[in-house]
Amino acid sequence: MTPAGAAGTVGPVRVVGTGVLGTSIGLGLRAAGVDVVLHDPSRTSLLLARDVGAGRLPQDGDPDPRLVVVAAPPDVTPDVVAGELEAWPGAVVTDVASVKGAVLGPLRSSGADLTRYVGSHPMAGSERSGPTAGRPDLFIGRPWVVVGGPESTGDAVLRVRTLATDLGATPVMLDAGSHDAAVALVSHVPQVAASLVAARLVEGDPAALDLAGQGLRDVTRIAASDPALWTSILGANAGAVLPVLRALRADLDVVIEALGAADVARDAESVQEGALGTVAAAIAAGNDGVSRIPGKHGGQRRAYDVVTVLVPDEPGELARLLADVGSSGVNVEELQLEHAPSQPVGLASVSVLRGLRGQLEEVLTGHGWRLAG
Amino acid sequence: MTPAGAAGTVGPVRVVGTGVLGTSIGLGLRAAGVDVVLHDPSRTSLLLARDVGAGRLPQDGDPDPRLVVVAAPPDVTPDVVAGELEAWPGAVVTDVASVKGAVLGPLRSSGADLTRYVGSHPMAGSERSGPTAGRPDLFIGRPWVVVGGPESTGDAVLRVRTLATDLGATPVMLDAGSHDAAVALVSHVPQVAASLVAARLVEGDPAALDLAGQGLRDVTRIAASDPALWTSILGANAGAVLPVLRALRADLDVVIEALGAADVARDAESVQEGALGTVAAAIAAGNDGVSRIPGKHGGQRRAYDVVTVLVPDEPGELARLLADVGSSGVNVEELQLEHAPSQPVGLASVSVLRGLRGQLEEVLTGHGWRLAG
Repeated sequence: MTPAGAAGTVGPVRVVGTGVLGTSIGLGLRAAGVDVVLHDPSRTSLLLARDVGAGRLPQDGDPDPRLVVVAAPPDVTPDVVAGELEAWPGAVVTDVASVKGAVLGPLRSSGADLTRYVGSHPMAGSERSGPTAGRPDLFIGRPWVVVGGPESTGDAVLRVRTLATDLGATPVMLDAGSHDAAVALVSHVPQVAASLVAARLVEGDPAALDLAGQGLRDVTRIAASDPALWTSILGANAGAVLPVLRALRADLDVVIEALGAADVARDAESVQEGALGTVAAAIAAGNDGVSRIPGKHGGQRRAYDVVTVLVPDEPGELARLLADVGSSGVNVEELQLEHAPSQPVGLASVSVLRGLRGQLEEVLTGHGWRLAG
Repeated sequence: MTPAGAAGTVGPVRVVGTGVLGTSIGLGLRAAGVDVVLHDPSRTSLLLARDVGAGRLPQDGDPDPRLVVVAAPPDVTPDVVAGELEAWPGAVVTDVASVKGAVLGPLRSSGADLTRYVGSHPMAGSERSGPTAGRPDLFIGRPWVVVGGPESTGDAVLRVRTLATDLGATPVMLDAGSHDAAVALVSHVPQVAASLVAARLVEGDPAALDLAGQGLRDVTRIAASDPALWTSILGANAGAVLPVLRALRADLDVVIEALGAADVARDAESVQEGALGTVAAAIAAGNDGVSRIPGKHGGQRRAYDVVTVLVPDEPGELARLLADVGSSGVNVEELQLEHAPSQPVGLASVSVLRGLRGQLEEVLTGHGWRLAG
């Protein structure tokens, strides 16, 4: 369970902050044979991170670190980075906070040596927290945004890129403003929207909730996220989140106004010209937007055929299904499980490349599987 | 691939409208041995439905239908239902439109015999349309809302409930207003929200889209839905959708105002008292709402542990993983596939009941699987 390949990072690496991210970085570097020295203001957290194997405590006679990784809460990150830059004049310092302008701005004001600072944001997380949730493979296959400021030296950027690749991540170069605008659009605003849709369910009739389908479950899944964490993220990135939220509100106003003028049930004759067209345009714009999300392997999203199969809710049944799918020679592009209300059976939706649906259905039917629509 | 058990429905059943829903109802009833007579104003669609086995054409000397199922577009449904009630004085008539007040209101105004009318809404659909997309198993395991009006006789309600159970669905009794409010909350408003979030992506930088994770994909998945279909649904249910959309806008206004007063990055000292608390309350309300969505088997949503595994993108690999999971004796509660950008590997997130994570990880590691965080 270790990142593959030999490390390009030269130790010792100093990791400041032994939460789930700092511990995971330590574990991943240790697994690649890199010397890691840990620090945390909480002695309990520090010793726990050491005990799970994320690195060692500092010793007299240690060489100065070549790289410092600050994995502190976003609001204290600028001060911690400034302190580390001052304490280790030969080290490159990076941080892993999920907003970058809110770190770079205060750092620049503080007069810190920005030639040796490069921000980063590994696009990985865990639903758990603390050193014991750390995993050496947390970053494998994930994008790792590297934010070299105008002052950063090429060598400093290279050391942080190397850290990302040593941990199995894919480095993505962005400036701080582009990063913050990007995560506002693809992460922070979707989080707010999911939370607001889910909040409407608080007053919903239980009978209404019983009609919930996969659509509602998908839209609201991330609404289960931690309020304290998201408050700190949204507060730190308010400058980038607000314009997108305001544009969303303007679009919502348009839909509300159009629907008010298009109440077909109340009086079909009074539906205003253009009102239904406005509603259709909003849904069509959503089609356009969702088609821009890159699909598998970073390419354009591909259109799939979906085969839905009834799966008894018993250990081994899903495996048997997938084995039968495998025997058809058809690759599974996506797989979703859904559960029927009050029935001991699940619906597995298997997405396959267009044109392979018939072949797969024939094989599955031959193995006795019941298909649903 | 047929619904299980003997049919309680007595034929002939007349199905009016041979799109995907009408054809699927015909196929399901025919599979259960019920005589089905088809009608559609489009002769091509009618003959296609007959050719796929959904039923037969009317013949001289046919007995009158005992049950008529109107599967027409929502906007013409009231007129078609009224015509069928008048043409077949011995028949119970139902429809399958996804809004119910917009059907019942015009019917009542028309003076139709409502003792023999019972609305219904099978909570099933297909991403495809037309008779060739019909499937006898479309409704298996899905809720089927049965809307008996105050005038409906008990026998009429029973015939429609029996239709639902014959097709493998689970009948859910609701009045028209409750149904329309329910689908506004759990389906129509989430659709609008997903479309609006996705529409924001139209102007997004491609580099931003490259950072999209599973959260954005989940929130926007249903934004790929058909604009024409959704315009007709939203227009017909505007009365129930608008109050929820307005409440959503009010909540959004609160978040926008609070974030404007909580721009931590611009000036942490000027953050207004209470602003961050307001943001946190909005996210927390989302936690409360999402926890009300019933989980598997209709019970309360259960908390799962998630084990994430790296799966090579080749036929058979996912099957091998699921077989190894099966050998651990741990049941898969949920399964999600995610693909790493520019890498020929997928991440499979396997949800298992709390406490079984360690057991599963040990077995998978023993089989040589690489775990991710």
